[in-house]
Amino acid sequence: MNMDKLYESVKDKGHVCIGLDTAIDYLPSLERKKAGSNSEAVLAFNMALIDATYDICACYKVQIAYYEEMGIAGLKTYSQTLKYIREKRCLVIADIKRGDIADTAKRYAKAHFSGDFESDFVTLSPYMGMDSIEPWLCEDKGAFIIMRTSNPGMRDFEYLELFNGKKLYNAVGDKMAELADKNTGKHGYGSFGIVVGCTERQEAAVIRQTYPNLFFLIPGYGAQGGGAKDAALLLRNGNGGVVNASRSIITAWQKKDKPENADNLFAAESARQETIKMRDEIMGEIL
Amino acid sequence: MNMDKLYESVKDKGHVCIGLDTAIDYLPSLERKKAGSNSEAVLAFNMALIDATYDICACYKVQIAYYEEMGIAGLKTYSQTLKYIREKRCLVIADIKRGDIADTAKRYAKAHFSGDFESDFVTLSPYMGMDSIEPWLCEDKGAFIIMRTSNPGMRDFEYLELFNGKKLYNAVGDKMAELADKNTGKHGYGSFGIVVGCTERQEAAVIRQTYPNLFFLIPGYGAQGGGAKDAALLLRNGNGGVVNASRSIITAWQKKDKPENADNLFAAESARQETIKMRDEIMGEIL
Repeated sequence: MNMDKLYESVKDKGHVCIGLDTAIDYLPSLERKKAGSNSEAVLAFNMALIDATYDICACYKVQIAYYEEMGIAGLKTYSQTLKYIREKRCLVIADIKRGDIADTAKRYAKAHFSGDFESDFVTLSPYMGMDSIEPWLCEDKGAFIIMRTSNPGMRDFEYLELFNGKKLYNAVGDKMAELADKNTGKHGYGSFGIVVGCTERQEAAVIRQTYPNLFFLIPGYGAQGGGAKDAALLLRNGNGGVVNASRSIITAWQKKDKPENADNLFAAESARQETIKMRDEIMGEIL
Repeated sequence: MNMDKLYESVKDKGHVCIGLDTAIDYLPSLERKKAGSNSEAVLAFNMALIDATYDICACYKVQIAYYEEMGIAGLKTYSQTLKYIREKRCLVIADIKRGDIADTAKRYAKAHFSGDFESDFVTLSPYMGMDSIEPWLCEDKGAFIIMRTSNPGMRDFEYLELFNGKKLYNAVGDKMAELADKNTGKHGYGSFGIVVGCTERQEAAVIRQTYPNLFFLIPGYGAQGGGAKDAALLLRNGNGGVVNASRSIITAWQKKDKPENADNLFAAESARQETIKMRDEIMGEIL
């Protein structure tokens, strides 16, 4: 069961999920000039970064939008990035936020759980209901359903109050908890978890208590305002969640001395230091 | 303004939106054998079908899942299909149902409104709120936000009753109507419309009256149970919506005599006949 593997990865390597949302301007300019194309430059950068961090992060999350932006060539880089992570025996979350009718969902699941775009987990959007989510159930794969995100717009719909006094995001969480009850792994989590941003500290403890059997994918760390304390409130017995950081890790090299001399190796080493710092800060809030 | 172009296309060519959800098993077996690969076979089939129908449909809708399923090669076929439709000066809706934070949404918009995957309209998912939708606003492009779909799972969340007695789907529709008020084209519709399935006849007239300035993308026709009468209830003064049909059109050849002898030309001619029939049935309900 894949959520068991993620649990064990957290236990071994900490809570950091490195977001490879690799825009071309996040790369050292030396490397951009050297590469034949943007998509090749991004692939070389990603590989250097993975080499330098795969032993100290729980998993990677790859946001497909950053690759689609570069067209077909970008999607080749997306595919090769996923393959490279999996070759390192690391887990990868494809951040694709799909959500469509059952027939279509089956095709999407084939697309993202096998072949060129094979990942270990995907992110899904719940709006169309459970028949858009259940077709993704699959022995060795998992998913994170967006529940309460970390963007300002979350208040438009996710926070809407329902007739029963609950919020919409709770209706989503409740359905996911029901589903998890039917397929709980040995560490107590369902194979489908939820996305819960760490930007709203006052709700964190309640959400964690309400959904003990759901593993959390936690965005909102760093650039979006969440800190180690906020993220730790969403963990359970020191596990039960991975905390995503993208820009703060992959552009850490820009904050060093003489960034104009940086190459991929330097950027990767900076990412490693930043990952260790984040990992230890979160650990420090748990102990 | 792109919704004006779609309005004019409906006026000229009727309400049918042909869904190119082209699975390999929807193709004549002769053609499958002849082609070098599944993705090439699908492209040849799509091109024949477009040649035979572009003068009698309002637009095409291409469901990206059917192409992602074939990996990189499938996405090349997706790209070439969009290009071919646009070369025929027809409008195309990329059915991608994206929905993500503003930074990501901007990248997605670049991916699907320019370059390899350029389309005229996209479909979007509203769950994460308006800051996941507004970055797609773009002079010559448009979008359809999923509001009330046509799958059984729509009752899980879309129909949830809110504190004010409205349904969640109305909260989405209301926000979209507000947005449309700010960017109305010469025919009275905003550049972003909504997806409203034609499977629930009893609600159709109310939804149409509630959202006069929103253009509708209407799924649920044919295989999913909606008929011409249901679809017509979602139109306004004979326009204001396109009605999608996929399988009933692209597999129409399978219901003819001796389908084992069919080739792409035969399948395309069958699709043409089926499109004309559907177009005229909807027209018949308006007059």
